[in-house]
Amino acid sequence: MSKTNRQCRLAQRPAGLPTDDIWSFTDEAVAKAGDGEVLLEVLYASIDPAMRGWINDVRSYIPPVGIGEVMRAGTLSRIVESNHPGFAVGDHVVGMNGIQQYAIADGKGLTRVDPDLAPLPRYLGALGMTGMTAYFGLLEVGQPKAGETVLVSGAAGAVGSIVGQIARIKGCRVVGLCGGPEKRSQLIDDLGFDGAIDYKSENVRDRVRALCPDGIDVYFDNVGGEILDIALSQINRGGRIPICGAISQYNNTEPGKGPANYLSLLVNRARMEGFIVFDYAPRYAEAAAEMAGWIANGQIQAREHIVEGVDQFPEALRMLFDGRNEGKLVLKIA
Amino acid sequence: MSKTNRQCRLAQRPAGLPTDDIWSFTDEAVAKAGDGEVLLEVLYASIDPAMRGWINDVRSYIPPVGIGEVMRAGTLSRIVESNHPGFAVGDHVVGMNGIQQYAIADGKGLTRVDPDLAPLPRYLGALGMTGMTAYFGLLEVGQPKAGETVLVSGAAGAVGSIVGQIARIKGCRVVGLCGGPEKRSQLIDDLGFDGAIDYKSENVRDRVRALCPDGIDVYFDNVGGEILDIALSQINRGGRIPICGAISQYNNTEPGKGPANYLSLLVNRARMEGFIVFDYAPRYAEAAAEMAGWIANGQIQAREHIVEGVDQFPEALRMLFDGRNEGKLVLKIA
Repeated sequence: MSKTNRQCRLAQRPAGLPTDDIWSFTDEAVAKAGDGEVLLEVLYASIDPAMRGWINDVRSYIPPVGIGEVMRAGTLSRIVESNHPGFAVGDHVVGMNGIQQYAIADGKGLTRVDPDLAPLPRYLGALGMTGMTAYFGLLEVGQPKAGETVLVSGAAGAVGSIVGQIARIKGCRVVGLCGGPEKRSQLIDDLGFDGAIDYKSENVRDRVRALCPDGIDVYFDNVGGEILDIALSQINRGGRIPICGAISQYNNTEPGKGPANYLSLLVNRARMEGFIVFDYAPRYAEAAAEMAGWIANGQIQAREHIVEGVDQFPEALRMLFDGRNEGKLVLKIA
Repeated sequence: MSKTNRQCRLAQRPAGLPTDDIWSFTDEAVAKAGDGEVLLEVLYASIDPAMRGWINDVRSYIPPVGIGEVMRAGTLSRIVESNHPGFAVGDHVVGMNGIQQYAIADGKGLTRVDPDLAPLPRYLGALGMTGMTAYFGLLEVGQPKAGETVLVSGAAGAVGSIVGQIARIKGCRVVGLCGGPEKRSQLIDDLGFDGAIDYKSENVRDRVRALCPDGIDVYFDNVGGEILDIALSQINRGGRIPICGAISQYNNTEPGKGPANYLSLLVNRARMEGFIVFDYAPRYAEAAAEMAGWIANGQIQAREHIVEGVDQFPEALRMLFDGRNEGKLVLKIA
């Protein structure tokens, strides 16, 4: 048995949109699990906008991926060898095990999941980091109250689509921003949004005013840029702006533009607050259980968009930046 | 007795720094107090950066001053006629009674102060709105904890100088930004700041790094612009940025620049939050009592910078924008 492990490694730092040549693929012999270790077969990898930040050489909430290292990714894997008392061969686990076919792990950061309760990719989506990001970002940072208006950008994306649906459950009026008429229809018809705006073809400022006639109480920001400025201009007194991401800015090769309307925070006693989902790890289980209940009773529709093959990682990552994914983007590796 | 009431009125909207010609002065007969009213002789008026916002024709936390109206201002006055059961002739009161020598009021929004307890202008400074702004902005929005680092801009100004001194009382390391070497020395030698930076002659980025070696936990922002961006770049995990003002931006004739580093809020789980002191009115008395205690025991030095004469209002307002005031700027009217 000399299986090989195909891996995607960072070959050089990107400038702008990550091109194929910043990655290299290597094939090496699959390692053996040492004492206290497990060997994982990676089945699925989560493709996330945050990855764009991880490959910049800057101080951030986790160290950047080093040149020559396997690309960091959230993964769902099956244990194929175990010398660890906490894991058995055949167990399914989520962890941060990278864009590769096999990984050695010492058990830290691995969480067992039940493959009979949900489709496996969902543990990277609504039941995984994506769902946790939407859940804690909206409920803890956004603090929505029944009757309030919640605006969410990237609303057809992995996090945004869950944010909007949770806000509906909480009794809010929900308006989503997305790119394209099909996504716009889906938000309204499939996900129950009260309003949706196609930022590519509609005048966002006018449409936000029309669809949020009582102003915005919570703006959940996934995109940054001009849309953040428009939301600031319509924020209500005491409004909250959870900053989840800024996908419109991640491939900038020059310093990004800040929100020129930020003084609206002062006038409206509003706040803009960043968060990192990892901080809520002690509460993941509780949140995932609630999310599973909402999915089970049909209040939340979880959607995954699957791309196949480890070699497709560079293209899959680019799909996020032109919005070709609908719902959670997942790379099927095994 | 045909006394006249000299008043400063807004004649036209400003473009940029408010020039003399946006104001007009009128002299009219002093009115009589009607039923339930008082006649006030205005002794002092508070000169504040917020005034620049009040004369723009934009949606804000209070309506703009209308063309032809007496300029809005916080004032300290003496009651010279009273048909109101709550006020007697000779009482001293603070209120929003405008840049004029006399005013009629119905008692709403007037608060009696004791002229024997403090110099009168102090009721517009450390014991007035200015002190309340520093107190609630720092303690409620900034939430400083002992041992943390607090950076404050406009630190030699009315609000900033109080913010820094309260932060010291709370056991924080305090660094101030100010304009000029004299102010810099005063912050250290007179007000007990741990560090001070002259933004006009020093490299702010380098000096902030040097004087805040453990990063910034609270950045109290009075100025906006590039200094806000530098503070964002050094904000610590969980940091708080109370947005009190943005004096560097108020005279912009083109849309201001937003803070390009705002994504530091995300990476550092930090927040930027605006506030308006008026929201804390129910707690003014409690805060003023604590402030008076700190002044009495020497923990806070309150300084007022007095300019004389109602006709000096236009020039006094401009003094704020080139930082010619040291401490609280007050216009002596009577």
